Amino acid sequence: MAEKPKVERSDYYHFCSVRTRWMDNDIYGHVNNVQYYSFFDTAINQYLIEQGGLDIAAGDVIGLAAETHCQFLNSISFPEKVEVGLRVGKLGNSSVRYELGIFVEGSDDAAAVGWFVHVFVDRQTRRAAPMPDRLRAALERLMCR
Amino acid sequence: MAEKPKVERSDYYHFCSVRTRWMDNDIYGHVNNVQYYSFFDTAINQYLIEQGGLDIAAGDVIGLAAETHCQFLNSISFPEKVEVGLRVGKLGNSSVRYELGIFVEGSDDAAAVGWFVHVFVDRQTRRAAPMPDRLRAALERLMCR
Amino acid sequence: MAEKPKVERSDYYHFCSVRTRWMDNDIYGHVNNVQYYSFFDTAINQYLIEQGGLDIAAGDVIGLAAETHCQFLNSISFPEKVEVGLRVGKLGNSSVRYELGIFVEGSDDAAAVGWFVHVFVDRQTRRAAPMPDRLRAALERLMCR
Amino acid sequence: MAEKPKVERSDYYHFCSVRTRWMDNDIYGHVNNVQYYSFFDTAINQYLIEQGGLDIAAGDVIGLAAETHCQFLNSISFPEKVEVGLRVGKLGNSSVRYELGIFVEGSDDAAAVGWFVHVFVDRQTRRAAPMPDRLRAALERLMCR
Repeated sequence: MAEKPKVERSDYYHFCSVRTRWMDNDIYGHVNNVQYYSFFDTAINQYLIEQGGLDIAAGDVIGLAAETHCQFLNSISFPEKVEVGLRVGKLGNSSVRYELGIFVEGSDDAAAVGWFVHVFVDRQTRRAAPMPDRLRAALERLMCR
Repeated sequence: MAEKPKVERSDYYHFCSVRTRWMDNDIYGHVNNVQYYSFFDTAINQYLIEQGGLDIAAGDVIGLAAETHCQFLNSISFPEKVEVGLRVGKLGNSSVRYELGIFVEGSDDAAAVGWFVHVFVDRQTRRAAPMPDRLRAALERLMCR
Repeated sequence: MAEKPKVERSDYYHFCSVRTRWMDNDIYGHVNNVQYYSFFDTAINQYLIEQGGLDIAAGDVIGLAAETHCQFLNSISFPEKVEVGLRVGKLGNSSVRYELGIFVEGSDDAAAVGWFVHVFVDRQTRRAAPMPDRLRAALERLMCR
Repeated sequence: MAEKPKVERSDYYHFCSVRTRWMDNDIYGHVNNVQYYSFFDTAINQYLIEQGGLDIAAGDVIGLAAETHCQFLNSISFPEKVEVGLRVGKLGNSSVRYELGIFVEGSDDAAAVGWFVHVFVDRQTRRAAPMPDRLRAALERLMCR
């Protein structure tokens, strides 16, 4: 198991609020590990839609998950509120690596850190496609400095 | 199929905010019907915990779903935000019938209406148990007038 | 709360197997009430696809949930396996009312009973549309006798 | 993005069947990336319960997710059935690294490969605890040769 990474809120350039749900808690009383990834793709897609103009219903280019990773540091329990920090670690022509941190509202200690690689593809052929300009510009604003 | 009920925000006495998630959208592009029930039990349990003192981790009395119902009126799509209206239609010794309405943020037309019956039981024996006073008082505040 | 209905496996004309998942169990150690509806729409759509020729990716007509209901009779726990019994209670031109029973594998006592109304609509306009012949024929085979 | 790994069914020593569900499909028509992790922890916990004697309701020692990873290779769509291959890559005193492959029924090409680290802890204190003998023996049977 890797060492616990030190992560701060200031490491991220955009935040998305997520509400935990009753059924996120598993039998051990904490938000199930699987749901953390749901927080990741919610934060990412909300940003792409609202800031990058991604049209999930009809756009020609869509983002598919290629590889994801999460390290769990502290538990979360419903009904706590969560904030997902987002930045971009690497930006290619048709792919992007997001880096994410999950924080319980009011806490500076990350509950989890992870990353997520999107490959943008043509909706019909599902072959890699260059990301649209507006979407790229939105991602550039989140690049690690 | 029943007629479309007319429901207004003012019919409810408490509201809970829920954020839709990427994976709530199903293949037809709208929040899956199943998730509406997740909004219901999130709103209910959050109220019971925050207003009624329900201790979901260690309390002696817990609430189990006995019967639930939902009528779907308008679609919801991620990343829309949702508000769940809550009131109490019937309050017994160990059971309660909640009535709920789901509204997209900024809309006065309900996306769905439904109801949910909780039976309170002893955590160990799972037999019906009277609800604690503080919890009952919280539910009385939501009774239909 | 309604009386407990008496339901037998022989009341249903088609069965669909579902596997419970780790995260179906909620903090009280049983499959969360919300997931029962997921078992319902899984059984229904699997039947429509495999027996009725429903093309969920590209077909002109799709089924949308209009109203659903569930009464919870006995708990289910991961890793139990589940069988969902299905029959058709009412069949219109563009709508159908399914009646469902959920049984833990090896048990004759229903864990839950419920119903689910689908309205078939045009994929583009989302207006009610007559169901295709093959799909209707598949549903007729499940009609209550 | 990493290269596509070559993985075969014979690389895994135990298989768990999972049924996809209607709501696993996301707006792009395929099982959402998040659900793959649900397949992982379902396969793992089912093995621990059935082969290792893990008592998720009352046992002294429980397994918590510490780190997880998944690489997505081929899409899956409801109503396809899935088989999750499982082996153990590393076994410590209180932690284990599982390696997993997801295969659509009837296909030899993995839809995804990943790994999952469990740390076993005392249920009350949530501090690392040695895994029980029967559980350890079950995991040893899945060790990479």
